[in-house]
Amino acid sequence: MARAAALDNFFCRLAPRLGERLRDLAADPVAAAALARDASHAPEGVADAHVLPQTTAEVSAVAAAAQEFGVALVPRGAGTGKAGGCIPAAGQVVVDLSQMRSLLQLRPADQLAVVQPGLITAALDEAAGEAGLMYPPDPASWATSSLGGNIATNAGGPRAVKYGVTQRYVWGLEVVLAGGEVLRTGRQCQKGVAGLAMAPLFVGSEGTLGLITEATLHLVPSPRGVQTAWLGFDDPAAASLAGSRIFAAGLLPRMLELLDAPALQALHEVHGQASWPMPSTPTALLVETDADDPQAARAQMQRLCEVARPLACRLAAHADEAEAMRGARRQVSQALKKLFPQKISDDIAVPRSRMPELLAQAQRLATAAGLSASAYGHMGDGNLHVNLLCADAAQRHAAADVRLQLYRWAVGVGGTVSGEHGLGLTKRCAIDIEFDPVSLLWQRRIKSLFDPQNIMNPGKSYAI
Amino acid sequence: MARAAALDNFFCRLAPRLGERLRDLAADPVAAAALARDASHAPEGVADAHVLPQTTAEVSAVAAAAQEFGVALVPRGAGTGKAGGCIPAAGQVVVDLSQMRSLLQLRPADQLAVVQPGLITAALDEAAGEAGLMYPPDPASWATSSLGGNIATNAGGPRAVKYGVTQRYVWGLEVVLAGGEVLRTGRQCQKGVAGLAMAPLFVGSEGTLGLITEATLHLVPSPRGVQTAWLGFDDPAAASLAGSRIFAAGLLPRMLELLDAPALQALHEVHGQASWPMPSTPTALLVETDADDPQAARAQMQRLCEVARPLACRLAAHADEAEAMRGARRQVSQALKKLFPQKISDDIAVPRSRMPELLAQAQRLATAAGLSASAYGHMGDGNLHVNLLCADAAQRHAAADVRLQLYRWAVGVGGTVSGEHGLGLTKRCAIDIEFDPVSLLWQRRIKSLFDPQNIMNPGKSYAI
Repeated sequence: MARAAALDNFFCRLAPRLGERLRDLAADPVAAAALARDASHAPEGVADAHVLPQTTAEVSAVAAAAQEFGVALVPRGAGTGKAGGCIPAAGQVVVDLSQMRSLLQLRPADQLAVVQPGLITAALDEAAGEAGLMYPPDPASWATSSLGGNIATNAGGPRAVKYGVTQRYVWGLEVVLAGGEVLRTGRQCQKGVAGLAMAPLFVGSEGTLGLITEATLHLVPSPRGVQTAWLGFDDPAAASLAGSRIFAAGLLPRMLELLDAPALQALHEVHGQASWPMPSTPTALLVETDADDPQAARAQMQRLCEVARPLACRLAAHADEAEAMRGARRQVSQALKKLFPQKISDDIAVPRSRMPELLAQAQRLATAAGLSASAYGHMGDGNLHVNLLCADAAQRHAAADVRLQLYRWAVGVGGTVSGEHGLGLTKRCAIDIEFDPVSLLWQRRIKSLFDPQNIMNPGKSYAI
Repeated sequence: MARAAALDNFFCRLAPRLGERLRDLAADPVAAAALARDASHAPEGVADAHVLPQTTAEVSAVAAAAQEFGVALVPRGAGTGKAGGCIPAAGQVVVDLSQMRSLLQLRPADQLAVVQPGLITAALDEAAGEAGLMYPPDPASWATSSLGGNIATNAGGPRAVKYGVTQRYVWGLEVVLAGGEVLRTGRQCQKGVAGLAMAPLFVGSEGTLGLITEATLHLVPSPRGVQTAWLGFDDPAAASLAGSRIFAAGLLPRMLELLDAPALQALHEVHGQASWPMPSTPTALLVETDADDPQAARAQMQRLCEVARPLACRLAAHADEAEAMRGARRQVSQALKKLFPQKISDDIAVPRSRMPELLAQAQRLATAAGLSASAYGHMGDGNLHVNLLCADAAQRHAAADVRLQLYRWAVGVGGTVSGEHGLGLTKRCAIDIEFDPVSLLWQRRIKSLFDPQNIMNPGKSYAI
C-alpha cells in the first residue's frame, strides 16, 4: 500500500536521525495490529508508522517534522488504556514513549520523583517503597501501565478514595508541544502558586495538547499499617448502604471496592475458588484501611466492620493474602473479558450519595434491553465499572443505547460519563451529554491555541 | 477629577441596573482608600469605581460592559491578599464580590459544598464541621478571607503540609469570562476526567482569566482526634533539623510551623507572655497531629516528639489551649507589622530538604544588607515567610535587592518565589527569575485567548 506523500516526507526527514526506531508498519502486519489497539472495546485502528524516541530532543524533532508535513501524532505508552485514546488511524504516526522509561530522580527528603513517561507505574511505587514512600495512584493495570499514560488519562485506581487521582501527584511536567517547542511547567517543591497553573491542563488531556516527556511526581509517606479484608453482602444495594454508613461514620478507608455476583463468578470460573473465599455471600466489598501506626489501621478496620455490618468478613492474615485479595480485584476486568469477549465497560461516576441509584439504574436499563450486566469498581468514589456482557453484535448494538441512557441519567444527577478512563474514542458519543456548548467551545479553543494544525491526537476525547 | 470617557460609558450602561451598588468613588475618598489596598506591602493604588454585584447575571453584565467600553476590572474579595492582586489603578473598576457570600449547598453525603465567592473561609469550615467534615485550607486570614480570593490565589495555610492547598479542593467552578460569557467547568463528584481540566487553570490565576462566581468544593472527614503542641528549640537550624527527622521517620503531621526569635518576640510584645509560654527557648515549632481515632493522634504526637527531640514541649491540654496556640501563629504577621510597619514579607518555597539552607541564606543576605529579618511559616512545606524588618525607605530599598538575590537562589535550587501568596504586584519583579521565556509566553497566550482585550486584572502576576 502506497504511503501518503505527507508520511513519505516525514520518514525522509527523520529516518537519518532515528534509524530503525522509525518504522513503516506496512512490512510488519503483526506489529501494526498490536499498535492499532489498546485495552478498550474500541475497534482496531490502522497503524501505519511507529516511532520510538529516546530523548526529549528526538520527541521535539518528531513534533517539528509532523507539523511541517501535516502528519498527525498519536502518543502511546503501554497500551493499557480503556478508552481507545492511543488507537491510530490511517496516515497517523504512533509515538511510542516506552523506551523513555527512566526513573531520573528519587529524592525521599523532598518527597518527589522525576520520571520519564515510559516508566511503569508499579515500578515507581516499588522504588518509592524502598525509601519508605508511596506513589498512590494504582490503576488495575499498574503492573504494566506507564506513568505517561496515567498522566494523559489522569488515572485513578482503588486507593483514590483516600489518596485522590493522578492529578494530585503531578507537580511539574515537561511537554513537547505541536511544532516541537518544549514547555517546562509546574514545580519541584510542595507548594508553588506563581503564574498560571498550566501543568494540570495536560493531566487528563489524552495527548491532545502535547507529548509528555518528563514528570515531577509527589510521593507520600508509606503507611506502616495496612489492613485488608473481604466483606460479604447479599447484593450490591446492601453493600452500597454499608458504604454510605462507613462514610457517615467519618471513616476514610483507603479502598472500598464493590464486586457484584457476575464479577465474583467470573473470578471463580477463571481463577478458581480461592479468588473469592466466601461463596455463600454473592456480593463483595474489598476494603483497606491504613495509618502510620499499625494499631491505628487495625482499629479503623474494626470500626469499619462494626459500621458496615457485613454478612461475612475475612481479614487478610498477612501481606501475601492481602496482595492476593487486591490481585483478585485487579483481575476482574480480564476475567469478565475472557467469558464475554464482546463486553462493553464504562466508568461512570456520580456524587457518592447517588451510588445506590446508579446500581439500580444500570440493572434496570440493562434488563430492559435484554442484556446482562456486571457492576464493580470504586464504590467509595461513586465510580462504577458498569459492564454490559454482550454475546454478539446485536447485543452490542443494544448496549450502545443503554450506555447513552445511563450517561444522560448520570450527568443529570451531577455525575460524569468518565470517572477515570477518559473519553478517547469509546465515549466521544457522550460529548454533548457531558459538556455544555460553552465548555466544549473553550476546550476546543485551548486545543487550537496549543495545536492550531491539529497534529496532536486529533479526534480523541473532546477534540475534533 | 473628571472621569475618563470609557468609565462614563460604563456607568451610563450599568447604573440603571445596579443603582447604588455601582459607585463613583471620587465622592468618597475614605472608601476609595480602603479599596485601593490589601494586606500586602504594595503601595496604595487608585480606586475610581466600585461595583457590588449580587448575582452571576450581574457579574456577566459588568464584564460585558467592561469589554464594550474597554474598562479594566479588578476583582476583590475580602482584601486580605498578601501580594497586591486586588489593588486597582486609575480608570479601573473594583468588582467587589463580598455580597455574593451564600453557602448554596452543603451535601455531607457527597462531601461537597457549593459556595459563592464572598463566603468567608472559616464560615465554610465551621458549617462543614457541624456535619462532621472539614474544609482544610486555612490561610492565617481565614476568619476574614473569602473563598473566591482563596481560589484566585490558590491559598495555603498551616494544614497544607498534610492536606494540600486550595487547588486540591476545587472540583468545579463557574467563571464569568471577559465579555460576559459564563463558563461552567469541573465536576460535582469525587472523580471525573472527561475533557480538558479547565477548572485548575483558574485556581491561582489571580483574577487574570475571569471572575469566579461559584465553586464546588470538596470536604473531607473531620478527624476526631487532634493534638497540638509547642516545641522549643535553640534556633531555626535546630528546628529545621527536627523537621527533617520528623519526615524521615515517615510521620506526616498536619501542622509544622516555624516561629523564630523575632517572631516570638513580636508576639510577646504585642499579645503578652501567654502567646509563647516557653520564653527560655527562643525558637518554636507549632505542631499538630490528627487522626480518625483520638488515641492514634496522641500516639503520633508522642512519636513526633521523640523524633524531634525539642528542648521543651508544651502539649495543649484542651481545645481552647490548642486554638490559642493556632491563634498565636496566625497573629505573627500582624504583630510584626505593628512593630515594623515598613516590613516586607515574602513566601518563598523550596524543596523540603533545602529548608536549612533557605533559613541560612535569608539571614546571611539580610545581615549583609544591614537588615534584620524574621523567618516563620510552613516549614513542613519548605514554604517560609521571610520578613525583612525595614525601619525606613532606605532599608526598603536595600530590601528589594535582598529579595531578588533570595529569589534567584530559591529558584536555582528548584523552588519558587511564591509558595502561597501569588505574584500580584509585589512579586512581578521576579517574573523573569521564576519563568523561562517559553513558560511566560504560553501563560500570556492563554491569557490572550481568554481575555484578548486585557480587561481582567491587567498587570497582575504574569499578565501584561
